[in-house]
This record gives sequence, structure tokens and C-alpha cells, in this order.
Amino acid sequence: MNPTVLKLGGSVITKKDRPETVDGERIDRVAAEIAAADGPLVVVHGGGSFGHHHAHEHGLTTTAGSHDVAAVLDTHGAMTTLNGVLRRALLDRGVPAVPVHPLSVGWRSVDGELSVPTGAVETLLGEGFVPVLHGDVIAHEGAGVTILSGDELVVELAVALGADRVGVCSTAPGVLDGAGRVIERIDSLSAVEDVLGGSEATDVTGGMAAKVRTLLALDAEASVFGVEGLSAFLDGEQSGTTVA
Amino acid sequence: MNPTVLKLGGSVITKKDRPETVDGERIDRVAAEIAAADGPLVVVHGGGSFGHHHAHEHGLTTTAGSHDVAAVLDTHGAMTTLNGVLRRALLDRGVPAVPVHPLSVGWRSVDGELSVPTGAVETLLGEGFVPVLHGDVIAHEGAGVTILSGDELVVELAVALGADRVGVCSTAPGVLDGAGRVIERIDSLSAVEDVLGGSEATDVTGGMAAKVRTLLALDAEASVFGVEGLSAFLDGEQSGTTVA
Repeated sequence: MNPTVLKLGGSVITKKDRPETVDGERIDRVAAEIAAADGPLVVVHGGGSFGHHHAHEHGLTTTAGSHDVAAVLDTHGAMTTLNGVLRRALLDRGVPAVPVHPLSVGWRSVDGELSVPTGAVETLLGEGFVPVLHGDVIAHEGAGVTILSGDELVVELAVALGADRVGVCSTAPGVLDGAGRVIERIDSLSAVEDVLGGSEATDVTGGMAAKVRTLLALDAEASVFGVEGLSAFLDGEQSGTTVA
Repeated sequence: MNPTVLKLGGSVITKKDRPETVDGERIDRVAAEIAAADGPLVVVHGGGSFGHHHAHEHGLTTTAGSHDVAAVLDTHGAMTTLNGVLRRALLDRGVPAVPVHPLSVGWRSVDGELSVPTGAVETLLGEGFVPVLHGDVIAHEGAGVTILSGDELVVELAVALGADRVGVCSTAPGVLDGAGRVIERIDSLSAVEDVLGGSEATDVTGGMAAKVRTLLALDAEASVFGVEGLSAFLDGEQSGTTVA
């Protein structure tokens, strides 16, 4: 059975306007809904107020790097802390969550090509564990380290694992049109380019337009939904915007 | 320039007879000597009183596994803590040490074959960082997780990275003969089988005989030495027992 890959946006599990503050209530809610789901699952979470703060401070993006070990450790350390909080909540609900840190396994070549070997994730999944990964810093040939975004990671994992379903949970109820309504289905970027344009909530790892672009490139059907849509998605139902 | 791979035995950096107790003085000394060394370096450390305790409690060896998430997290968590203490001491001496956790990257197939992709380690090394790895639990097809010993990891890394030199630092001054003298050079296991026999200080990941057997299989020359021989080894000198 092919796994489901679930991305939890940083804004879902942290208070994005306060440095290194988790949203405990949201994390508990999300953990309870994941615990109620069946089937193999990989979880990826973003940085929210943990990762972006340090990334910004050290001038890190997915292309701009640093050789400063403090840039590595501040960013990676904060993400590891957030990963531990989320995993603790999952464990408390009986989910056999285990950490997988991209810094240990991923890298970019000098021309920016991303490699993330997934043998450990696949084997953990096969043995019944729930790997929990996160946006991180990774080694980048010639640039020191750069950011690996949670969104990039979701795509890498979905392709490598042959994911059946991909879910992207953020604080918006889906991809919104100009009038603030959830777009039910997106089959091509050109059809929604006008309304997406850029993202008002820009972060170092790209906004909604970038998310949709990468999700469109997937074979698997992807869903973009809010926290209130998570339970339906995990139950196998349509939720938020379907990007196919 | 090909890197040096240095293994620090668990008994070097922890007090092996007291659960989860580091040997702070030894760690400081080792960190200072590593800081004084030149050239690309990968550090691997063992578990000592951190890893073996939990491995034993959960019945984990390199072949006996567990599907209990507590077995994963107790062992991995203790090793991650020890890794953090060692890295902190290295950072304090100016060594750009970054963590690489085998659980994130390695796995065994159903017949026990070990895979540890090393692209992240190689790229980190190339960018001037010092990857610090450790014995760990890793996913094992059909068995849940099993132990990946520091000694296995040293061999994997030495081969994959084309290491110039491999150093194994333990609390003994080298491989000892029946009279307690350091054997200067070992070219084959048969020549020293009588004196090695087994190891009196048995741990879950094998004693000195197993160490020598795996080191003999390497193309690179390996040295087995005590803490007092670390500085000489890092200076490029002969130290303790040479296994070639």
C-alpha cells in the first residue's frame, strides 16, 4: 500500500508572529486527527516561527547559502526542537512517530539539483513507523548550506515513495480565488495564474503560487486544505482544493 | 583531499559503568586535539553508557530488532544527547561540527545488508564542516529497527568516502597481545586470532576481534590507539596498532 504524504504548514503548528512559539492547541488537534487515520503515513512540517526567523537572520534561502556553522545549527536546532514537540504530541496519541532529519540525508549539487535518498524513510514506513520530517538546512555544493523547504521535501517524498495521496495543510481553507472563495480543482497553473499571482504571506520558501506549481508537477493528486479539512483528507475524502 | 575517519569509542567519552554519564574531561581533551588537527575529518562516536544501556534493555543488537517505538526513541534519544555534548565541546574549540543521524539515512534489507547513503556527509565535508555521526538504531526490513554500531559506520564511511586514514580511539593503547603489550602491526586475522579470541569487555556491537576483522577488510590503513595516541594519529604519525 502506497503511503500518504502529509505536509503541516509551519503556520499550522506555530504562532508565526512570535519567534519559536508553538501552537499547542493546534498541535494537539492535529495529532489527534492523525492518530485516528489508517494506513502508512509520512509527515513533513514547515518551520513557521521556528525556522524562518533563523533562516532570515542568516540570509538563508533555497538558493542563498552560508558556510557559518551558526547558520546551520541555529536553523537546524530550532527545527529539531519543533519536530520534537510535534512528535511528542503524536506519541502521546499512540502514533509511532520517529524523526528523520533532512540535514543528515539530503544535499544539493553545485547547480542546485536536490538529492534526498529515501531508503530509510521507506524502510521505517514498511516497519509500521510514521517518519516525521521537516524543512531544514542541507549541504549545498559551493554554497555551504541552503534551505530545504517543507514543500520541496513533500514533492521529493511523494515521487520517491509513489505516494497515493498528498495533503498540504495550511491555515487557509484551500487555494482561494480573487473573491476569497476556495477553488475546488486546479488542473493547470495558467487557469489560476491571475488569482494566484504572488502570495501576500511571502516566506523564504515561497508562497501559494509556488506550492501549486510544484503540486501540479506530481503524478499523485494533491489536496490543499485548512486545519478544519485535515480529518476529511485523512479519511480519504475530497478536502479544500484538489490539484491534479 | 580524502578525509580522515575518526571513531571515538563510547568508553572514551562516557563513564561506561554509570548510565548516561559523560566523561567531561575526556571529551574536552579529545575536542582540543581534534581542533588542533588539519584536513577534512569525519567523526563517529560509540554509545558507551548512553547507547548500550537502552539497547540491552530493549533486546536490540545489530541483528535482533524491535518494532517498539520506545526502543527506537530511547536508544536514538540517548545517542542524540551524547552527540550534542560532544559537538558542543567541538564547537567551543572552533570545530564546525554538524550532526548526522544514521536513523535518518541508513537501513538494512531483510537479509541484513546495510545501506548508508553518504551524499550529505560528502557534501558537508566538501563545504568545510565536520560531520559527527554516531552508533544508532536504523530501520531493518522485517525486524523493525536494529543497532548500527559505530564500528560498522566507520567502515561504511571509510569505503564510501575513500578515506585516507581511519582511526579507532578506545581506552586501550592498541590491540594487545597475551602479555598485555601493544601489537604494532596486524596484516591478517589468523596471525592474531589466538590472542584476540573474544573480547572480555563484550558489548552489543562486538569487541576487539570484530573491530580488527572489519578494519582488515578496508583498503585504507587503520590505526587502533588509546586517548594518549589520538594527537599523534591526527598529526599523521603511527599510533597504537596499525591494521593494514
